[in-house]
Amino acid sequence: MVLSVLRYRSKRPMSVVCLIVKKKEYGMRGWLAAGLAVCMAGAQATPVHEYNLKNGMKVLVREDHRAPVMVAQVWYKVGSSYEVDGITGISHVLEHMMFKGTDEYASGEFSRIISENGGRENAFTAQDYTAYFQTMEKSRLPVSFELEADRMRNLTLPEEEFLKEVQVVMEERRMRTEDNPQSLAYEQFAATAWASSPYRTPIIGWMDDLENLSVADLRAWYLKWYAPDNATLVVVGDVDPEEVFQQAKKYFGPLQAGEIVAPKPRLEIEQRGIKRIEVKAPAELPYLLMGYKVPVVHTAEVEWEPYALVVLAGILDGGTAARLESELVRGGEIAASAGASYDAYDRLESLFLMSGTPTTGHSMKDLEDAFMAQVGKLQDERVTAGEMDRVVAQISADKVYEQDSIFYQAMQIGILETVGLSWKEADRYLERIKAVTPEQVQAVARKYLQRDHLTVAELVPQPIDPKQPPRSGGSAHVH
Amino acid sequence: MVLSVLRYRSKRPMSVVCLIVKKKEYGMRGWLAAGLAVCMAGAQATPVHEYNLKNGMKVLVREDHRAPVMVAQVWYKVGSSYEVDGITGISHVLEHMMFKGTDEYASGEFSRIISENGGRENAFTAQDYTAYFQTMEKSRLPVSFELEADRMRNLTLPEEEFLKEVQVVMEERRMRTEDNPQSLAYEQFAATAWASSPYRTPIIGWMDDLENLSVADLRAWYLKWYAPDNATLVVVGDVDPEEVFQQAKKYFGPLQAGEIVAPKPRLEIEQRGIKRIEVKAPAELPYLLMGYKVPVVHTAEVEWEPYALVVLAGILDGGTAARLESELVRGGEIAASAGASYDAYDRLESLFLMSGTPTTGHSMKDLEDAFMAQVGKLQDERVTAGEMDRVVAQISADKVYEQDSIFYQAMQIGILETVGLSWKEADRYLERIKAVTPEQVQAVARKYLQRDHLTVAELVPQPIDPKQPPRSGGSAHVH
Repeated sequence: MVLSVLRYRSKRPMSVVCLIVKKKEYGMRGWLAAGLAVCMAGAQATPVHEYNLKNGMKVLVREDHRAPVMVAQVWYKVGSSYEVDGITGISHVLEHMMFKGTDEYASGEFSRIISENGGRENAFTAQDYTAYFQTMEKSRLPVSFELEADRMRNLTLPEEEFLKEVQVVMEERRMRTEDNPQSLAYEQFAATAWASSPYRTPIIGWMDDLENLSVADLRAWYLKWYAPDNATLVVVGDVDPEEVFQQAKKYFGPLQAGEIVAPKPRLEIEQRGIKRIEVKAPAELPYLLMGYKVPVVHTAEVEWEPYALVVLAGILDGGTAARLESELVRGGEIAASAGASYDAYDRLESLFLMSGTPTTGHSMKDLEDAFMAQVGKLQDERVTAGEMDRVVAQISADKVYEQDSIFYQAMQIGILETVGLSWKEADRYLERIKAVTPEQVQAVARKYLQRDHLTVAELVPQPIDPKQPPRSGGSAHVH
Repeated sequence: MVLSVLRYRSKRPMSVVCLIVKKKEYGMRGWLAAGLAVCMAGAQATPVHEYNLKNGMKVLVREDHRAPVMVAQVWYKVGSSYEVDGITGISHVLEHMMFKGTDEYASGEFSRIISENGGRENAFTAQDYTAYFQTMEKSRLPVSFELEADRMRNLTLPEEEFLKEVQVVMEERRMRTEDNPQSLAYEQFAATAWASSPYRTPIIGWMDDLENLSVADLRAWYLKWYAPDNATLVVVGDVDPEEVFQQAKKYFGPLQAGEIVAPKPRLEIEQRGIKRIEVKAPAELPYLLMGYKVPVVHTAEVEWEPYALVVLAGILDGGTAARLESELVRGGEIAASAGASYDAYDRLESLFLMSGTPTTGHSMKDLEDAFMAQVGKLQDERVTAGEMDRVVAQISADKVYEQDSIFYQAMQIGILETVGLSWKEADRYLERIKAVTPEQVQAVARKYLQRDHLTVAELVPQPIDPKQPPRSGGSAHVH
């Protein structure tokens, strides 16, 4: 979830960095389970202090006194999975607009003030959340709070700024998706894999929806979701929790609660057989995406299953010792790249993903067969104790990195709270991973990695220079 | 569009007949083009008188004095293609609720009064419209108008009635979709073929959405779409147009206009390669669905293309002389049934569909190859003058049936108006069909029946009695 964050420097005047957390959409070479572990493991370091404001806003504070800095993050329970057809991408456009002025501060003032106070800021839009972050010297916490509280309820959303900003977003879409064959393939893959789940639409939105978005739509979206009772404030750093709470009361306390109506569940309908698509786009290399429907912690009926899936992902993908790297990339030399990923902390039923690119000497069919053989092996044979140890060791080792970052600590707390879990989940994570048995890994492989719940997308490269033929012809898979 | 209307007698106390127009979803054995022609051709019979009320309501009247009856229809521009994820099926549930009482008339009164006046009534929900019809002795027109005007703005939507009615609809869904393998396959086919078009969701809605629908959702939907400026009143029968207009003014004139916001365009994203799914469900027989993305009259950039597609559908499917019947069913005996359909009067980009079931001696692959061979033949060779004549003759001959039905005359006017065309389109239809050349049929076959814009769904029968094996194993298509 964290490792695949894409950094994008927008054309905003104040050089605000806007991040769309498009996990899984861009290559998936990292080991996401490890990424989670980074955030998880350190959660045991110091306790989280939990407060609630009367308007429904939750305040979570963790002390970390290694450096005289703090990160303040405001997490909203809204993102692309809250959107409906016709206004896809609206959460992300609204994130852009959050820098475009309030009654109190004109457009751009927010970023200028943070910057003048030596702060760094970010904003993220993902499927399940929209979040705003400032990292500042610890005494500047009130600066962050005042500005965040102000824009939570007082955004002006001027039409002329909107008209400019939506163009910026459309350009972002062109760069990141239209001109990126793997993203394009992922987007169509997700739209096929999911029939009724909101995970079927792209975070950045369909171009046609962006073209037809209005400032009235944004205003309605803002009023619907931006309220203290739909927000979590997370502060990690060299701070005193009680003092943070007092400041939070001072700045966020006066805000009026919203009238938050929970989004419709929009459960995915039962998949009753394999789905398969081709995606033809100008590209250098083919690319294969395979995804199985799987539960996550938030939806799991059997508590240990998501953790077993995390371990399973670690068996396949997690450095050079993992199976995909050792057997498909180095061993068989079938894949130029191959990855597997699974995010246990999505809000809704998710996908266990495998993806890769065949080597020049191998076809997409070879690569798919190799992935299927890996699945078969996981179903037929128990993973070894040695492999289990490697996965747990990797997750544990990641603690080191995690403790270095107050940002990721805060991010993990924010994600867990926002997807309907609790920050306490972080404290249990490592212990649950350690409790997974080889039998459980085999059991989830058998239960969930089933052909009838699989979606396969194949990027079929088309000439980038239309005068040149593509590297390889189509595929024999999807007739 | 008309021929595949499904009749369903609901469990409503007043035995109101509720029709969902699920064109294309149920077998598609009829020749839809002919069905359209039925309605079209007769449109030239007598002129349509057009009036506009000050509140934005359009009134269209056609005289037909053969019998002392009239049909009155109220058409709303709302249907499943106006819905968004999370509230799919809401238009249809609202149609049910339209019989559940207003401030003036208690639940069930509507149907009782119509019945007491010797009238028959229907209501339809489709992708692009919701419509309410009464057929009555001509003097009873004011009865119909008074009741329809009343429920256009004064529905009470009592919660207890809603809770009962949504159960009725869920049962309807179980009977029509969950327990109907072809419907189930069609539903998943549409959800795969369409990525961003609203045609991807079922008219009856996803079960999970029905389960989570609230009377507050319905109230909002009613307020949003049920207003005179979003409605067309169509009257056909033994009436005097000017008198009908006076009555319309009297009953509908006082209604306040709504604040209608046009739905988002939600254009379908470009399909970049074939899509293919398996749908496993308890069934006796396999079933193949193939659909190509095609324009319709409302979206066409080249005016004649939709008419050429209508003729193309007629070449393939339209009685025993048509190619599918003569070459696939009788000739090669590959198909136990085979059909093709296309509806030129959808509101949005549509699908050219082919569907069928192989004979016992043939595989799904054989059937698909046979369909593809038919497509190839249409692309490679011009259709003969004889075949062109047959299609035009068939459409022309259908005039006879059409003139028999004031109901279908009114329905055609209503559909055309509601999908954004004009009733005048009906007068031009036959002439445009006649103007289609063999070259144009070949041109649309080449331009639109392209593999990269094709979606294929295969119903793979599972045992109905789980103890018995299915008729045939899966398929070699979708690995």
